[in-house]
Amino acid sequence: MPDAVRNHPTDVSELIIKARNGSPRAAGRLLSLVESDRRDEVLSTLAALGAPVSDVRVIGITGPPGAGKSTTIGALVGAYRQRGCRVAVLAVDPSSPFSGGALLGDRIRMTAHINDSDVLIRSVASRGHLGGLAAAVPAAIRLVGAIGYDVVLAETVGVGQSEIEIAAVADPTIVILNPGAGDAVQAAKAGLLEVADIVVVNKADRDGAEQTVRDLRAETKAPIVSLVAARGAGLADLVEAIEVHHRADNRARRLARARAQILSLAQTRLRTRPDLELLAESVVDGRNDPYAAAERLLSAPPD
Amino acid sequence: MPDAVRNHPTDVSELIIKARNGSPRAAGRLLSLVESDRRDEVLSTLAALGAPVSDVRVIGITGPPGAGKSTTIGALVGAYRQRGCRVAVLAVDPSSPFSGGALLGDRIRMTAHINDSDVLIRSVASRGHLGGLAAAVPAAIRLVGAIGYDVVLAETVGVGQSEIEIAAVADPTIVILNPGAGDAVQAAKAGLLEVADIVVVNKADRDGAEQTVRDLRAETKAPIVSLVAARGAGLADLVEAIEVHHRADNRARRLARARAQILSLAQTRLRTRPDLELLAESVVDGRNDPYAAAERLLSAPPD
Repeated sequence: MPDAVRNHPTDVSELIIKARNGSPRAAGRLLSLVESDRRDEVLSTLAALGAPVSDVRVIGITGPPGAGKSTTIGALVGAYRQRGCRVAVLAVDPSSPFSGGALLGDRIRMTAHINDSDVLIRSVASRGHLGGLAAAVPAAIRLVGAIGYDVVLAETVGVGQSEIEIAAVADPTIVILNPGAGDAVQAAKAGLLEVADIVVVNKADRDGAEQTVRDLRAETKAPIVSLVAARGAGLADLVEAIEVHHRADNRARRLARARAQILSLAQTRLRTRPDLELLAESVVDGRNDPYAAAERLLSAPPD
Repeated sequence: MPDAVRNHPTDVSELIIKARNGSPRAAGRLLSLVESDRRDEVLSTLAALGAPVSDVRVIGITGPPGAGKSTTIGALVGAYRQRGCRVAVLAVDPSSPFSGGALLGDRIRMTAHINDSDVLIRSVASRGHLGGLAAAVPAAIRLVGAIGYDVVLAETVGVGQSEIEIAAVADPTIVILNPGAGDAVQAAKAGLLEVADIVVVNKADRDGAEQTVRDLRAETKAPIVSLVAARGAGLADLVEAIEVHHRADNRARRLARARAQILSLAQTRLRTRPDLELLAESVVDGRNDPYAAAERLLSAPPD
């Protein structure tokens, strides 16, 4: 049993039991721990308790700022709650890694669900660590799946490695765009369409929506859903598109997600190894090359 | 000795020897190998040959599309060549992970250096792997340092985890912006300024440049350099700002870079472990939870 678990035997186990019994407060505390340097302790305690590996569905939501991601997520939360699902919303904020800034303004748009104890809404800052996002998100997914949530809506902003990492663990990944000249082209240029399993044209009651759909049609083979998230128009189509994608899930896709998740969790473990600091010193002092140091890090027995 | 090295004993070693003797072709082939699944073989051969861990300087260049990153890099290449440095340009393209798309259009702007055998210009696609960028770039840096390049100019586009990863191995990271209402505010919003060691206002002969500098002054403590990269105006100031940053380098910063590099290289190794596939299967089949699988991956002896 890892040291961390021995040192805090009751705390985390108790929180897990409370969270599994439906306490949103315990769930929130656990998510905080998952974002802290006690992440490892939470994960190992889940394993030690034999917490079931749930088949939690992770839906990735991404797109440029202002596209209506939060409004869409709010609408999806409503749809899944109607179906009796417990829903966790993880808003990942890769754009502000050092401040740990949260998408507070956006969360306010989800106030409709703020008093629903079966809806967990949480900002996960990537904190500027190399691979910080990869480290926090799969652990958070593992956690919320284990404590009884059925659906995870994972929101990211912008373009970049973050979206690729989310895409690796999410299924489907939904890219949200707006009508407007160039939006489709820009999204294609930015590589955003390449991670899209479903493309949403939100604010589809605006001018140019049909043209945007046509432009997108030329750029992607993913299904395109027109939505007015603020009014819920098109929501049923979006939920159905998600269902269709989910029904088409197969072993190859599950294996790819499992690989991504294992690697992320392994990286988390490596990052907190006490010998990492000594190895970094040996590289700086010229006693090791970085490659040899990486080998050494991997060959040391896990603490 | 890893299997990969036993299987290709001459190939990679010969390429390394040729590259160290100045062959740009051999250097190019090695960089291709570093991007392929033979990355590990290149790294272990470098270690086996006792290739020196050089103090190669890595300068990260980032900023929104169209800001003039490539023009600036072209100008910096000229400046460092005048000082007798061998220069490697790595253009990282995180926006197109699946196509492996290269910044070809941009590279054309560097044609002034295309026949200079002491300048290596290369696009590194991130290939859509989780952490692919982290995996390719530190290995490429290790390689070019070992084969005698003095300066690496690493270019990334956009915003996101990519920039954070580059910032972790680069010193300094330069963020390039343009005059114009809102550019500074947008960059701040996007978190781009948080990774900046130096901010460049390029195209500083345009209207609004002074205002942009003032806006930026309110957003960041990093030095701000006004540049007209296409004409070389302000280039000496930029080179001097890089020098000042470099002279202020210290052990804490070197340790942080070494840690980032070791973790990236370790992740590369894990990604190619033959047991990863079996572990992913065990997770998909419910025989392991992802955390236990990650533990298993780390406790297996390196192949």
